[in-house]
Amino acid sequence: MTGWQTGHNPSLRKIGRKQLTSCRRSCFTYNSGMKSIRRKDREIKTHEAIGILDSAEYGVLSTVGKDGQPYGVPLSFVHRNNCIYFHCALTGQKLDNIGHNSKVSFCVVGNTKVLPDQFGTEYESALAFGVASEVNGDERYNALLWILEKYCTDFMEEGKQYIAQKDKAVKVFKVEINHISGKARRC
Amino acid sequence: MTGWQTGHNPSLRKIGRKQLTSCRRSCFTYNSGMKSIRRKDREIKTHEAIGILDSAEYGVLSTVGKDGQPYGVPLSFVHRNNCIYFHCALTGQKLDNIGHNSKVSFCVVGNTKVLPDQFGTEYESALAFGVASEVNGDERYNALLWILEKYCTDFMEEGKQYIAQKDKAVKVFKVEINHISGKARRC
Repeated sequence: MTGWQTGHNPSLRKIGRKQLTSCRRSCFTYNSGMKSIRRKDREIKTHEAIGILDSAEYGVLSTVGKDGQPYGVPLSFVHRNNCIYFHCALTGQKLDNIGHNSKVSFCVVGNTKVLPDQFGTEYESALAFGVASEVNGDERYNALLWILEKYCTDFMEEGKQYIAQKDKAVKVFKVEINHISGKARRC
Repeated sequence: MTGWQTGHNPSLRKIGRKQLTSCRRSCFTYNSGMKSIRRKDREIKTHEAIGILDSAEYGVLSTVGKDGQPYGVPLSFVHRNNCIYFHCALTGQKLDNIGHNSKVSFCVVGNTKVLPDQFGTEYESALAFGVASEVNGDERYNALLWILEKYCTDFMEEGKQYIAQKDKAVKVFKVEINHISGKARRC
């Protein structure tokens, strides 16, 4: 049928500390407990999913509110050390949601091309699951520098001044990835 | 700071039947009970948000699993009659999630342009909240035709045959929109 429906099926089970540690060590190879992707012909390798994540200009962070209302919003971000870092204002819906439930998903979409005569779409996407938490200290500052490097690489010095100016107006969060998968249709 | 953080803040209160009816009649003008968008300078009018939704090739549907795991995936879709229609396989994570909790959000992003020297991004996005349900009968068939018109307008006759072939392999859902908001930074 027209277009695509991704089936990046996450595990709905909790991941224990030991499993998560193992996951971090092996850099995204953790898979036990995850439902497999339904369309095997569309599944891509983990390193390809990470490549799509690294190339993306933005992603959609999905959180959930106290009353069960899902809330997905686009964010600038940077991916480093198995974490997705983003910054935000001091207050807002996603912070309220994360305060209530720190589980999140983060979706990025790469190249897409509608194929009208095939009733389909070429696409590539990656979906990460993880736990969001605020970061502080050196990790916070480093994350802001990484974001600067990603988006404003030719303006690093001015960017550092900008960070200093805006320092008290932003919070920085990370999503520690405990699973990532990718899907693509490439003709 | 670099990039953008959208603050499409939804109401976390339940919307009563009377209010929802009023919303449908007035075509997206329902706002009571919704938290306002934090960055007023970035808020756009409802009709502009609808325009971004109508222009989007795909959107990210956010649902939540039984154990509170948010799940946001990209989807092809069509917007008609205050509803977002999409089709999907007969089984999958998002169907499980919707079966558990039919509240969803749907995010689309329009044009974006990183502005490295301004430590920011031009963007436009829309965020809809609503309730998802499966559709059947004429509404189902019409939704498939609307999707065909959107993506495969030059292949309508072949598309109708394709729909007939794949008829038993897909489900069709709609999200009845009870709130939509939009944000943009345009330089």
